[in-house]
Amino acid sequence: MTKKHNFYAGPSIMPSFTVEKTMEAVKDFDGTGLSILEISHRSAEFDAVMMETLALTKELLDIPDGYAAMLVGGGASSQFYIVPYNLLNKKAAYLNTGSWATKALKEAKNFGDAIEVASSADKDFSYIPKGYDVPQDADYFHITTNNTIRGTEIVEDMDVGVPIAADMSSDIFSRPVDISKYGVIYAGNQKNLGPAGATLVIVKESLLGKVERALPTMVDYRTHISKSSMFNTPPVINVFSALQTLKWLKNLGGLSEIEKLNIEKSELMYGEIDRNKLFVGTAAEEDRSRMNATFVMKEEYQDLEEDFNQFASSKGMIGIKGHRSVGGFRASMYNALPLESVQALVDCMQEFESKH
Amino acid sequence: MTKKHNFYAGPSIMPSFTVEKTMEAVKDFDGTGLSILEISHRSAEFDAVMMETLALTKELLDIPDGYAAMLVGGGASSQFYIVPYNLLNKKAAYLNTGSWATKALKEAKNFGDAIEVASSADKDFSYIPKGYDVPQDADYFHITTNNTIRGTEIVEDMDVGVPIAADMSSDIFSRPVDISKYGVIYAGNQKNLGPAGATLVIVKESLLGKVERALPTMVDYRTHISKSSMFNTPPVINVFSALQTLKWLKNLGGLSEIEKLNIEKSELMYGEIDRNKLFVGTAAEEDRSRMNATFVMKEEYQDLEEDFNQFASSKGMIGIKGHRSVGGFRASMYNALPLESVQALVDCMQEFESKH
Repeated sequence: MTKKHNFYAGPSIMPSFTVEKTMEAVKDFDGTGLSILEISHRSAEFDAVMMETLALTKELLDIPDGYAAMLVGGGASSQFYIVPYNLLNKKAAYLNTGSWATKALKEAKNFGDAIEVASSADKDFSYIPKGYDVPQDADYFHITTNNTIRGTEIVEDMDVGVPIAADMSSDIFSRPVDISKYGVIYAGNQKNLGPAGATLVIVKESLLGKVERALPTMVDYRTHISKSSMFNTPPVINVFSALQTLKWLKNLGGLSEIEKLNIEKSELMYGEIDRNKLFVGTAAEEDRSRMNATFVMKEEYQDLEEDFNQFASSKGMIGIKGHRSVGGFRASMYNALPLESVQALVDCMQEFESKH
Repeated sequence: MTKKHNFYAGPSIMPSFTVEKTMEAVKDFDGTGLSILEISHRSAEFDAVMMETLALTKELLDIPDGYAAMLVGGGASSQFYIVPYNLLNKKAAYLNTGSWATKALKEAKNFGDAIEVASSADKDFSYIPKGYDVPQDADYFHITTNNTIRGTEIVEDMDVGVPIAADMSSDIFSRPVDISKYGVIYAGNQKNLGPAGATLVIVKESLLGKVERALPTMVDYRTHISKSSMFNTPPVINVFSALQTLKWLKNLGGLSEIEKLNIEKSELMYGEIDRNKLFVGTAAEEDRSRMNATFVMKEEYQDLEEDFNQFASSKGMIGIKGHRSVGGFRASMYNALPLESVQALVDCMQEFESKH
């Protein structure tokens, strides 16, 4: 079988360490004689998994005092309403950089005055807006740090005068982050953490408990914080697998090391997109995402798109088709993607170029 | 190693078929060369898994036209607020049969007039209240069909004049159900379906869209129905494993067959509890749960409790300690628990009795 190179945008490639450890645990979890699929979340063995997951999250992200981390069931889409439910008192400001940011903004409008301070919709979200003003009476300023669909990313921890609420679903753990700049960070697990089914939330505790509306128990972040993410049954196997990825990441040297690798991979990828006569990148150069490189066939080679898709597929490339709303190509290069896979795609682009 | 008998209350024993198929898929999902942990939910292979899961759910539960089934991320605790969010216009009636029902009622109060029509709190929730009136102007009547903690169960599909909203987390798929009696049914996966991390919801579609409050997109059942549970990224591995359990159940003969087995197991268990001089059941006889048998040491043998725990543990029994809020013992006998495990526990109780 041709070796597969997994460029899926999410759920996406996991470290082979995570896959192997999960396989072992499905067979027999921690010597219990039971599968991780059927172990009580109240067992001492799983309790240790949850505690270590939260501790390693804090360690790797260098989360300061005054912040809490929690893993909750479900996806980041639910955080689009849970963030304003918890934090929006009167006004919130949103930066609109794509489909996910648009969805987040829409949900916030149900809870108060949610303002779009800037948008890159005018150019198909191909860049990150700059030079806007964030109203200083906003409860928070919401950003989507990485836009999987359009291939743009904010890799700077901004100072805007109000707490930042960040959807980091697709670039959390890809670089060191100055958590102190943020009020809340949330991230669906399925890119850089573990299998889909859980969401990591990091929140500055002093921001909680300030809204007047009644919070459903499961919506209230304080519920999960007070019970170390074990108020209700957590998604056991999803948490277990996430822990394996965190261990892999720590063993690799942590966020500074993975950032170097991510920069190396994205430079290799964009270098080829820019060099190759057939392709052209779609995102503004200064805003290019390290996680998702989006590109299309140049105008004059448009009719080769399907050919390239098939050619790349025959070489073992998986998931390089662009999002259905955009077309073209997308190479997702999350933490677990080896440099070797990017090289394989680059080779593939060069071989295809030499044929045309 | 002593063979383990998994009596955990949930997450709980899964069919070995589910465990094996999941193990294979973690290694290589459907010949894709990728793990189920890292496959896109938009892949044709996973799309087929979701479609088959929904179809088999409908088939096994014999869900009539006009009802939709969906699998959503997260646990049943979230449904405590999502049900009233979607359905409570003015008034809802709740039957209080234990901790879970109490929690569900509490969440509903945030959305309207939520009335407790009857409660068995007076006797530690050891029975199911009867002879109450359900207000006919209620939008729905909420019940918890099986009370895992106290070991009571409602195995009858009631007629109460208003749509029933049922938390069936711990007994769904354990018997045939007349779905037409219900307005909404929800069930966390982790007892009779699959690993924790997803919740099955079945809803009568004509009841939706009648509340005036703004529904967050992810809270609105119609969102998930319209996209066949793929509006956002579903918990992929959790859905995959659930499908394996449904296949196992169908192969076994479906709900009528599993009900026979469940009755046989519970009769064996309760027979021993009633016969054995050391133990006594805690739930009213006519309301005993087939899923969770709760029992304690008789007054005069109270000091043997820890001894029995250790003895049973040495014989391979896992998870028979009662819920931390109740004490004593609990034998959870979900679908996947073989009769042989119940027999092993019975043998254990007899052997212990003969020593004392």
